[in-house]
Amino acid sequence: MEKEKLIPDTSIFTNPDVYRQFGEEPHLAFQTFLLLVAELEGEVGVYLPTSVFEELKRMLPQLKLPPRARSVLKVKSPKKYELYIPAFLMYEFIEEIRNRINKGLRVAEEAVKALSYKKPEEVLKSLRRKYREVLREGIVDSKEDLEIILLALELDGVVLSADRGVLQMADTLGLRFWEPKEIKETLEGFKVW
Amino acid sequence: MEKEKLIPDTSIFTNPDVYRQFGEEPHLAFQTFLLLVAELEGEVGVYLPTSVFEELKRMLPQLKLPPRARSVLKVKSPKKYELYIPAFLMYEFIEEIRNRINKGLRVAEEAVKALSYKKPEEVLKSLRRKYREVLREGIVDSKEDLEIILLALELDGVVLSADRGVLQMADTLGLRFWEPKEIKETLEGFKVW
Repeated sequence: MEKEKLIPDTSIFTNPDVYRQFGEEPHLAFQTFLLLVAELEGEVGVYLPTSVFEELKRMLPQLKLPPRARSVLKVKSPKKYELYIPAFLMYEFIEEIRNRINKGLRVAEEAVKALSYKKPEEVLKSLRRKYREVLREGIVDSKEDLEIILLALELDGVVLSADRGVLQMADTLGLRFWEPKEIKETLEGFKVW
Repeated sequence: MEKEKLIPDTSIFTNPDVYRQFGEEPHLAFQTFLLLVAELEGEVGVYLPTSVFEELKRMLPQLKLPPRARSVLKVKSPKKYELYIPAFLMYEFIEEIRNRINKGLRVAEEAVKALSYKKPEEVLKSLRRKYREVLREGIVDSKEDLEIILLALELDGVVLSADRGVLQMADTLGLRFWEPKEIKETLEGFKVW
């Protein structure tokens, strides 16, 4: 029986502050993570929604998993046509998005005004950065993010992510998560003596 | 026993194409709608989430309901801390928002580029209009919209709205709705002979 089901997103293996606890490069970090889990002999399971695994393979083209690592990786999407989520989550999400959409318009207006004293290329560059910051950072904004959350709900699993939006939604739903920089240490606590 | 529970949003009483079936002015239209329901002697109920009623009162400052109209209006918010919605709804919503956020950036970039041949005021005006179109129109984008949907879910009610986003989400969830321009006619079918 698995004591914990871990559901990592891609940020764990692409954010250098996080993946370096496992290895020098993203693809090696993912491999090492799985091999560590394999050593725990079934105490801990690793689950990846198909969409997240596909994303990870795109991001880590050098990825090649040894059989032992592959044996502990369970690729499984959430049953999104059977799962239900609390209505207040959608409620909070719409409020948050609405605020961000308003801020996005302010950013665009400022860009137009900045053209009177800045070069167009500079303005466009800073527009793209600020718009992204305002509209995308710190919220669940992709189906991959949401699938992590839904799979954790379905399996009563632990969310592993370095993305603030994902961790926040997991917490709002009462899901468990691990401190992203302490995943390796925490895993070691599951060793069978 | 009510045969149908109607849950109207503000668009029914603020969109001229819709409210004119009931009266020449929005506040008279709302009054007439309620009086028509009152004539049906309990066959049909009218429910409004508190947030929507407050919004309506702000939009129709002249509103004054005669007692008979008031007696059929049930102000009630959805039980959003008890209700659950299918996960795929959130899934579709996030996909839709993500596409729209990308389009919003294109609109902002175009505005910056248009400044080379257009006046700043013109550019800002068209930026605001296009941004709104791309990010807000045709989707559920406010807590008031969502409360209409949630209340209809809770009560198994009929959604009355002229907002494409609201009707689309209602339909996705398998809720009933009436053709907005035919509400008066449909109500007449409930008359007790």
